[in-house]
Amino acid sequence: MKGPLRVAVLGAGTVGREVVRAILERPESLRLADGPGVVLAGVAVRDLGRAIAGGIPESLLTDAPAHLVAAPETDVIVELMGGDEPARTLIAAALANGTSVVTANKHVMAHHGPALEAIARRTGAALRFEASVGGGIPVLGPIAHELAANRIDAVRGIVNGTTNFILSAMASDGRAYGDVLADAQRAGYAEADPRGDVEGDDAANKLVVLARQAFGRWLSVGSIGRAPSLASGELGLPGITGVTIEDIAAAAARGFAIKLVAQAVRAQNGVAAAVVPSAVTLASALGRTDGVLNRIEVDGVPVGRVAFAGPGAGGAATSSAVLGDIIAIARGAGSSWAGRSATTSLEDALDLAADETFDAPSGARYPVIR
Amino acid sequence: MKGPLRVAVLGAGTVGREVVRAILERPESLRLADGPGVVLAGVAVRDLGRAIAGGIPESLLTDAPAHLVAAPETDVIVELMGGDEPARTLIAAALANGTSVVTANKHVMAHHGPALEAIARRTGAALRFEASVGGGIPVLGPIAHELAANRIDAVRGIVNGTTNFILSAMASDGRAYGDVLADAQRAGYAEADPRGDVEGDDAANKLVVLARQAFGRWLSVGSIGRAPSLASGELGLPGITGVTIEDIAAAAARGFAIKLVAQAVRAQNGVAAAVVPSAVTLASALGRTDGVLNRIEVDGVPVGRVAFAGPGAGGAATSSAVLGDIIAIARGAGSSWAGRSATTSLEDALDLAADETFDAPSGARYPVIR
Repeated sequence: MKGPLRVAVLGAGTVGREVVRAILERPESLRLADGPGVVLAGVAVRDLGRAIAGGIPESLLTDAPAHLVAAPETDVIVELMGGDEPARTLIAAALANGTSVVTANKHVMAHHGPALEAIARRTGAALRFEASVGGGIPVLGPIAHELAANRIDAVRGIVNGTTNFILSAMASDGRAYGDVLADAQRAGYAEADPRGDVEGDDAANKLVVLARQAFGRWLSVGSIGRAPSLASGELGLPGITGVTIEDIAAAAARGFAIKLVAQAVRAQNGVAAAVVPSAVTLASALGRTDGVLNRIEVDGVPVGRVAFAGPGAGGAATSSAVLGDIIAIARGAGSSWAGRSATTSLEDALDLAADETFDAPSGARYPVIR
Repeated sequence: MKGPLRVAVLGAGTVGREVVRAILERPESLRLADGPGVVLAGVAVRDLGRAIAGGIPESLLTDAPAHLVAAPETDVIVELMGGDEPARTLIAAALANGTSVVTANKHVMAHHGPALEAIARRTGAALRFEASVGGGIPVLGPIAHELAANRIDAVRGIVNGTTNFILSAMASDGRAYGDVLADAQRAGYAEADPRGDVEGDDAANKLVVLARQAFGRWLSVGSIGRAPSLASGELGLPGITGVTIEDIAAAAARGFAIKLVAQAVRAQNGVAAAVVPSAVTLASALGRTDGVLNRIEVDGVPVGRVAFAGPGAGGAATSSAVLGDIIAIARGAGSSWAGRSATTSLEDALDLAADETFDAPSGARYPVIR
């Protein structure tokens, strides 16, 4: 019998704190009948004093994440620092060592997915990233497992809570984008620099990860359009930054809600994808996904359309997916892509043309999704 | 390298036909990177002539399912006959032989789950039953895997398409139960003997399976209440058979829809469970789950509430779950309960008390679920 899995956590922010707490306070919940238990080997943080004040035992702490990655006794690296570097280098180093990695980092997966998948396949280390899409909502696992026999034709969803909160508040309160954004920043739903959310980058990152799982292809994140067309033929402002309350009111009068929808569709020569504000029927499930909820729909043959919904962000919810991935590694379940075909090359997304548009007062031509 | 998995299918009805067709016509979709392929070893049917006319090669057909179960070269038995016997005996015999079993049979799992789990655990054969709840919607797998680190506190849902179709049609058309049922029978949405659906047995069977997965306990299906209380203190008619259009109209006037909700909740001394018509907010996701759609919600800590929705029945959709289970066995993924705690004993469900009721014109006191 192998001993417990030794887990090192990099980053003790909103998600990291919850993961550390779960491993320390309820390790029995991570010890399943068919796998070894889990112990915390160390926690790397930027600010040691704050982590100690937050209740993480000093003996576990370090401000040198590379040491935890290099330690031969570490079985799993849990990367929860977010952002590009040093996360990318640390993940790559762990995988190159043969150490398995769990990450919630959609930026790194979307921008460096092919390279990281190549390393993981070469060394046999597991790379798991369920938490990178939809927070605690199971979606990558079900695509790879329960839906494994399907040909997936489309994935679409509302995958960014910040923009959905802003659009929902604009619609319900009739207040302007800038006002609601400022409120969201004060309430902690939007960051001080909100561009990654409101311009659609975060949703595009998640769409790249979803598309890899659904279609077995890594899309170049930069190739994914994230601005609606204008009546003039030019491109509008990216993400939700050009959506006005007049647009929302005019859409509502036609029975539509405006939502930031990330969508990728199987096409003849590749995958067509976009992250743009879209007109969805008010009465539809996407139209009624309000506030910080996420909803992801998967169209497959033979299954038809299945949907996954729930809290797409937040430390506690996201920790559920991270902990589930740690348990999966303890069980020897391998990488998130499971039996989905290998892909370590990068390709551009094709344009996702709309069959029907809603031409809004601002001049934006929002695609209609029924 | 082990050869392909030899699969024998028992039953070629709505689901069986789709499973057989998939294995014969697109075997490559069942051959994943990390597992062997799948071949069809045989198909057992009651009516050989009809199966041949339906396009199944005569060389694969038999009317003796026990021969396929006993054949030493069969790796997996896929039981899609439905009902109690002979399905129960055939599943038990296969598991006792060490042959893995995939089934969509909620009746057998709900009534004989503890005994079948005991045999599977003794011989090490895998027993998988994703298709027994929610048709093609992934739900048992996600509870066991992506949500493995959670303490599940409740599972609830609309899990019977026939009753939901009838209630939806009564609400939208203002027509009486008997009329809508007769239409549903003509359209093939309800069986000639509809009692298993309309009296709540089918939903109770599915709730037993969901509760096993969520709580690690097998509930006695007969102990699950399936009739609303009446104002008189007595029990009303079972399932939806006592729901009137007056009840639905009065509920709508108060902002509620009447839905047949199956619910199981963690309690101090066990699991409280019921399958009763319930008043759910019209604007809620359950309230808006209409027609033959299913929706299953899972409340867990730390995840919060996640939901799974889609087509809960139909041959094509359900075949997705069956085929996913076959692939899982090819990968060596074991039984549907995965690391969830072992349980081979039976216990009674506790009463599920409602905090709030909607007292309907018929005298029924429908629990309110907000």
